[in-house]
Amino acid sequence: MGSRGYDMTPTMYSPDGRIYQVEYAIETVKRGTLALGIKCKEGIIMAVEEKPRALQTSHVTQKIFQVDYHIGVAAAGYIPDARVQVDYARYFSQGNKMTYDEPVEVETVAKYLADQCHQFTQYAGVRPYGVALIIAGVDQKGPSIYVTDPSGTFVQYAAVAIGASSEEVTDFLEKYYESNMSLDDCCALAISAINLKTEEKEGVKHIKMSKITGETKGIEQVSEEDLKKYSEIANQKYSQT
Amino acid sequence: MGSRGYDMTPTMYSPDGRIYQVEYAIETVKRGTLALGIKCKEGIIMAVEEKPRALQTSHVTQKIFQVDYHIGVAAAGYIPDARVQVDYARYFSQGNKMTYDEPVEVETVAKYLADQCHQFTQYAGVRPYGVALIIAGVDQKGPSIYVTDPSGTFVQYAAVAIGASSEEVTDFLEKYYESNMSLDDCCALAISAINLKTEEKEGVKHIKMSKITGETKGIEQVSEEDLKKYSEIANQKYSQT
Amino acid sequence: MGSRGYDMTPTMYSPDGRIYQVEYAIETVKRGTLALGIKCKEGIIMAVEEKPRALQTSHVTQKIFQVDYHIGVAAAGYIPDARVQVDYARYFSQGNKMTYDEPVEVETVAKYLADQCHQFTQYAGVRPYGVALIIAGVDQKGPSIYVTDPSGTFVQYAAVAIGASSEEVTDFLEKYYESNMSLDDCCALAISAINLKTEEKEGVKHIKMSKITGETKGIEQVSEEDLKKYSEIANQKYSQT
Amino acid sequence: MGSRGYDMTPTMYSPDGRIYQVEYAIETVKRGTLALGIKCKEGIIMAVEEKPRALQTSHVTQKIFQVDYHIGVAAAGYIPDARVQVDYARYFSQGNKMTYDEPVEVETVAKYLADQCHQFTQYAGVRPYGVALIIAGVDQKGPSIYVTDPSGTFVQYAAVAIGASSEEVTDFLEKYYESNMSLDDCCALAISAINLKTEEKEGVKHIKMSKITGETKGIEQVSEEDLKKYSEIANQKYSQT
Amino acid sequence: MGSRGYDMTPTMYSPDGRIYQVEYAIETVKRGTLALGIKCKEGIIMAVEEKPRALQTSHVTQKIFQVDYHIGVAAAGYIPDARVQVDYARYFSQGNKMTYDEPVEVETVAKYLADQCHQFTQYAGVRPYGVALIIAGVDQKGPSIYVTDPSGTFVQYAAVAIGASSEEVTDFLEKYYESNMSLDDCCALAISAINLKTEEKEGVKHIKMSKITGETKGIEQVSEEDLKKYSEIANQKYSQT
Amino acid sequence: MGSRGYDMTPTMYSPDGRIYQVEYAIETVKRGTLALGIKCKEGIIMAVEEKPRALQTSHVTQKIFQVDYHIGVAAAGYIPDARVQVDYARYFSQGNKMTYDEPVEVETVAKYLADQCHQFTQYAGVRPYGVALIIAGVDQKGPSIYVTDPSGTFVQYAAVAIGASSEEVTDFLEKYYESNMSLDDCCALAISAINLKTEEKEGVKHIKMSKITGETKGIEQVSEEDLKKYSEIANQKYSQT
Amino acid sequence: MGSRGYDMTPTMYSPDGRIYQVEYAIETVKRGTLALGIKCKEGIIMAVEEKPRALQTSHVTQKIFQVDYHIGVAAAGYIPDARVQVDYARYFSQGNKMTYDEPVEVETVAKYLADQCHQFTQYAGVRPYGVALIIAGVDQKGPSIYVTDPSGTFVQYAAVAIGASSEEVTDFLEKYYESNMSLDDCCALAISAINLKTEEKEGVKHIKMSKITGETKGIEQVSEEDLKKYSEIANQKYSQT
Repeated sequence: MGSRGYDMTPTMYSPDGRIYQVEYAIETVKRGTLALGIKCKEGIIMAVEEKPRALQTSHVTQKIFQVDYHIGVAAAGYIPDARVQVDYARYFSQGNKMTYDEPVEVETVAKYLADQCHQFTQYAGVRPYGVALIIAGVDQKGPSIYVTDPSGTFVQYAAVAIGASSEEVTDFLEKYYESNMSLDDCCALAISAINLKTEEKEGVKHIKMSKITGETKGIEQVSEEDLKKYSEIANQKYSQT
Repeated sequence: MGSRGYDMTPTMYSPDGRIYQVEYAIETVKRGTLALGIKCKEGIIMAVEEKPRALQTSHVTQKIFQVDYHIGVAAAGYIPDARVQVDYARYFSQGNKMTYDEPVEVETVAKYLADQCHQFTQYAGVRPYGVALIIAGVDQKGPSIYVTDPSGTFVQYAAVAIGASSEEVTDFLEKYYESNMSLDDCCALAISAINLKTEEKEGVKHIKMSKITGETKGIEQVSEEDLKKYSEIANQKYSQT
Repeated sequence: MGSRGYDMTPTMYSPDGRIYQVEYAIETVKRGTLALGIKCKEGIIMAVEEKPRALQTSHVTQKIFQVDYHIGVAAAGYIPDARVQVDYARYFSQGNKMTYDEPVEVETVAKYLADQCHQFTQYAGVRPYGVALIIAGVDQKGPSIYVTDPSGTFVQYAAVAIGASSEEVTDFLEKYYESNMSLDDCCALAISAINLKTEEKEGVKHIKMSKITGETKGIEQVSEEDLKKYSEIANQKYSQT
Repeated sequence: MGSRGYDMTPTMYSPDGRIYQVEYAIETVKRGTLALGIKCKEGIIMAVEEKPRALQTSHVTQKIFQVDYHIGVAAAGYIPDARVQVDYARYFSQGNKMTYDEPVEVETVAKYLADQCHQFTQYAGVRPYGVALIIAGVDQKGPSIYVTDPSGTFVQYAAVAIGASSEEVTDFLEKYYESNMSLDDCCALAISAINLKTEEKEGVKHIKMSKITGETKGIEQVSEEDLKKYSEIANQKYSQT
Repeated sequence: MGSRGYDMTPTMYSPDGRIYQVEYAIETVKRGTLALGIKCKEGIIMAVEEKPRALQTSHVTQKIFQVDYHIGVAAAGYIPDARVQVDYARYFSQGNKMTYDEPVEVETVAKYLADQCHQFTQYAGVRPYGVALIIAGVDQKGPSIYVTDPSGTFVQYAAVAIGASSEEVTDFLEKYYESNMSLDDCCALAISAINLKTEEKEGVKHIKMSKITGETKGIEQVSEEDLKKYSEIANQKYSQT
Repeated sequence: MGSRGYDMTPTMYSPDGRIYQVEYAIETVKRGTLALGIKCKEGIIMAVEEKPRALQTSHVTQKIFQVDYHIGVAAAGYIPDARVQVDYARYFSQGNKMTYDEPVEVETVAKYLADQCHQFTQYAGVRPYGVALIIAGVDQKGPSIYVTDPSGTFVQYAAVAIGASSEEVTDFLEKYYESNMSLDDCCALAISAINLKTEEKEGVKHIKMSKITGETKGIEQVSEEDLKKYSEIANQKYSQT
Repeated sequence: MGSRGYDMTPTMYSPDGRIYQVEYAIETVKRGTLALGIKCKEGIIMAVEEKPRALQTSHVTQKIFQVDYHIGVAAAGYIPDARVQVDYARYFSQGNKMTYDEPVEVETVAKYLADQCHQFTQYAGVRPYGVALIIAGVDQKGPSIYVTDPSGTFVQYAAVAIGASSEEVTDFLEKYYESNMSLDDCCALAISAINLKTEEKEGVKHIKMSKITGETKGIEQVSEEDLKKYSEIANQKYSQT
């Protein structure tokens, strides 16, 4: 109410120094379904909750993207924005490879995407991106996970959740995450985390997951079969009582 | 009401993180008459309801377009926007053919059109497209159907309805659609689906339909004669009681 | 009233998905005097009602234009917009002839003009065209008539009326139009149609008419003498009682 | 009043399809002093009422301009706009002569100026021209007179008045104008027409007149002496009782 | 009051056809101190009232400028605008000399400056110039004086006053001006004219004057000594009682 | 209050012909601490009051700048604007030297900076500069001092004060300034002038001073030691009782 | 409240000469956590308070950046803005090295960043940067520390604090800072300064520190171990009772 007028464009500060349009864009992220990433010594995993529409061709995921052989992105918020950012990231990664003849580092991609987010917070005539991204991959420094958000911030995490209920899920992750977990345990933990707040009572149809191991350094989709397997582990290990 | 001010441009978020102008453009789609697409192993069909104006030359369809030899588009919403998007798709398909010397994939076209929709949600001085498109075709991967909407989303479907009453029609499709239907059954199902909510009590003059079979891989308009034939099948198979 | 704010620019949707500025531009068309086009096997005619101003040099028509040897345009609405669109159509037709060495098709011109109308519905800083055009001509496919309007729509008709009272006149045309009429009958029907709602009680001074026959394929102005002749036929054939 | 908001820019239609800024610009024309043009077989005349300011150098006219050897312009409304349009017309005429090696036609100039007026009714960030122009001249087709106004309309007249009281003066012209008048009679009629509503009770100091005869085809200013002579004829012939 | 909204930009007409921002800019001129120009057979003079600020270096004038050897400008209103216009005039004059190898005419410069003023009345994003200029000089046609104002008008005068109290001073000039005055008498008349409304009770420190004679055709500042001499003549000849 | 709406942009006049944004920018100057310049036959001095912040490195002055070897600038108002203007002045001075191979004149620099100020009063999308500058130096014409302000005005002074309390200080300067003062007396007068209204009760830490003598023609900072010496002289000569 | 309207864009002054958007951007700085810099003869240190998020990879600092081998930046406010400014500074430093073949001076970088801040206070369509930067380094002139803020000001300090509680911390620094401190004492003083107002009761996990010594002239992160050591010194030396 009192914010009226100051919250109309990202190029305007409110009297107390806030950029409301950026804060509203972060609200858009919170409206999106949950996405999360978990890192362990073996590699990284990304998982999202996806509610497929009626008659949608089900094997295609809308919220996990491959950026390069060794880098993936999981998104929460306004997904068309994610798709566009991922396209930019792909061009950037390929360009980087062409120039330096080695795979781009995960951090470099994350910084590139965060800088792009920032641009859209400073000039008139555009809106900030309405999406947060988990950029996860394995490069010469090992596995790593970064998060960018509409403000242009990027931060490195061991495990992170974005989108709806991300605060509760973060508490959950903080409670169970251990840096020396196996990748399988990461997968199980991810499923428990998503199920913490989902409306889907059973099955794994509402979950999409991808992983990158330090071994292959290539992104792979986790099969429905494996998801079921991890789901059972999850029920044993991380059941909330 | 409370939205006033935040809903004036696609470059502005509301305090709860919504982009109202995109939501309003989706309303425009709902104001359009029904369009639908159905996929089976033999190929795909597209069908639309069209209410011809007085003295309009009747054999010309306004809402189904040929994009390439093997790809068509059916539209619901603000049709002049559809025409412009289809033109872009045609240039894109031809350019793709020139560059790679093979027919463009249906998904590539759908992504291209969705990206274009997205552009119009992020910058000031334009309005989002007011149309949703069913992009259907047969390529080296077989038959496929995609839908783009004003938000820049694109999703693959087995069967889908857009425009007026699309929710009821989707329920209807979900009920009767089977992935191993024959193309003829698809045609009949489409007619039943359109007749579910139409004001036209009889005949097929309000229906335009096109199909692409895996055999010819070329788009063909379904003749009025055939429409009548399918209409009879429809009455037998999918009568709602 | 409730529309206030949403109707200020063509780049804004109202909450129910309407583009008000386009609808207002269509109001401008309705404020213009009547224009109509009728097609028969022999060719096409275009007719407009024109109220000459005091001391205006009377033989010059303001609302029927020649686009190419075989194509004409009749306009209703904000006539300076029509003049500009006709100029573009002339350049386009000549360019087309230069490139392909054959006369441009009527449909190609109509689509070109409709696309131009559409452009002005999507970007800020301009207003939509305030005019509807009847594009009529005879090409290798025979006679044809198209109508474009401020929304960017174009539709093919057998007979059509635009501008003031176009709805009543369309009903009238629908009642009397037959696809196998002679061109002379078309002319007479047109006069009756214009006289249906005109304030001019007698004579033909308020009527301008042009025709293109399949024989000459060239646009010709119908002389005042012939108009009188057709007027008599009209009085016999299409008198409304 | 009810128009508020819709009348702020020429790029906006009101709900009833009017472009208010164009209508307001036409009001500017009506605020200007009277200008008129009369055509006869011998040639054309242009006349304006001009109220000289104190100590103004009197022989210079502000409202009649020479465009080319054979074409003049008389203006009513916001005169600086007229001056700018006349400059464009001069460049256009000279360019035309350079290209085609023959004097430009009067109609071509009038259309050019009307098109320019139209441009300023369609784009944001400018105002429509606030002036109406009488473009009069003698070319290979003989004498002719055109009028352009802020809307971009151009119309050919035998005799015409623009600016303050133009409606009453038009009635007067309509009453007395005859197409077979002599040029001298045209001059006298023009003086009567201006005096119809002027505040100047006597003399010809408030009148400027120019003529172009079919003989010389060159624009000439009518001398004060001749104006007095015509004034006497006027008093005899066209006195209003 | 009722003008609110219509008077915010020079690109908007009010419902009665006025361009308020231009009228307001003319108010700026009236806020400036008096400037005047007087022409006689021997040449021209320009004079301004200048109130020097404390400790200002007094011999420098802020309101009379040399444009070319034979042309000067005296300004009233927003003086920084005058300085910029004078700079443009200097470039223009020099360019003219380079091109045609003869001194530019006074009228050509006046028209150039008026056209520039006009530009700023037609486009958004600028304000009209807030200054009126007296352009005076001696060229091959003899001495002449022009005035430009924010509207883009330019008018030739025998004698003219602009700025504060210009109306009373014009009446005064009209009363005493004679076209066969000597240049000395012009100077004396100018001093009387300025003193008519000044707050300075005595002396000539508040007066700056320049002259251009037909003999030298070069602009010269009138010395304080001469101003005193003319002041005495003025007291004798033009004392108002 | 009544000014609301007219004072939002420098491109708008108020009904009484004022450009409020320029007037507000002059308010910014008045908010700045005092700066002054004094000229005598020996050269010029510039002095400013500067309140150093806690732990600021004290020998660096924020408000006196060197533009060229022989020209300095003292500023009052929004200092970052001054810094930018000084940078432009430096480029300009160097460019001038490169072109003409002699040191630029002080007046040329002052006019250049004033023109730049003016630009920012005429176009939309920028704000006028919020700073006034004293441009002082010694060139082939001897010592001179100019002042520019946000309106684009530039005026030559013998002695001048800008910023907070400049009116009282100007009265003080007017009372004591003599054109035949020694440079040492100028320095002492400057200190008295600053101390007239300062909150600093003693010492010279709040004063920065620079001088340019006709001898060296180079700008030199006056040392704290010398400031103390001048301060004593000031107490004797210019004590206000 | 009364500021409404004048505080919407950096291109507008309020009636009392303030640029509110710049003042609001300075509020953004105050919302940021504390950052400080301290200079001594041995070199400089920078320290920030950072509250790591749950599961954030802790060794990475978000608020201290390396610009060049010998220059670092510590930031308070909207950190994505800092990141972008640091990127510009890096390009600038490298460019400088390429051009002059010697390391850039700290002051040159500070001025460059301040000029960039200033740009964003003068033009429409952007917002001022929402961050203050401490630019610290060791160059040929020895160690130095500069601060830039959203207004475009840059000032050299011996010791400085920016961000939340900077005023109290500045008082604290002023009380304890001595120009002949050892670098170790600077580190301890910095820890005390941060702990003055932090919510963290113990440990050094909330503190990040970097230093540049005159010896190595290279930026080094201070290890957690060393931080603990300094923390103990701090508790002894600078305990506030």
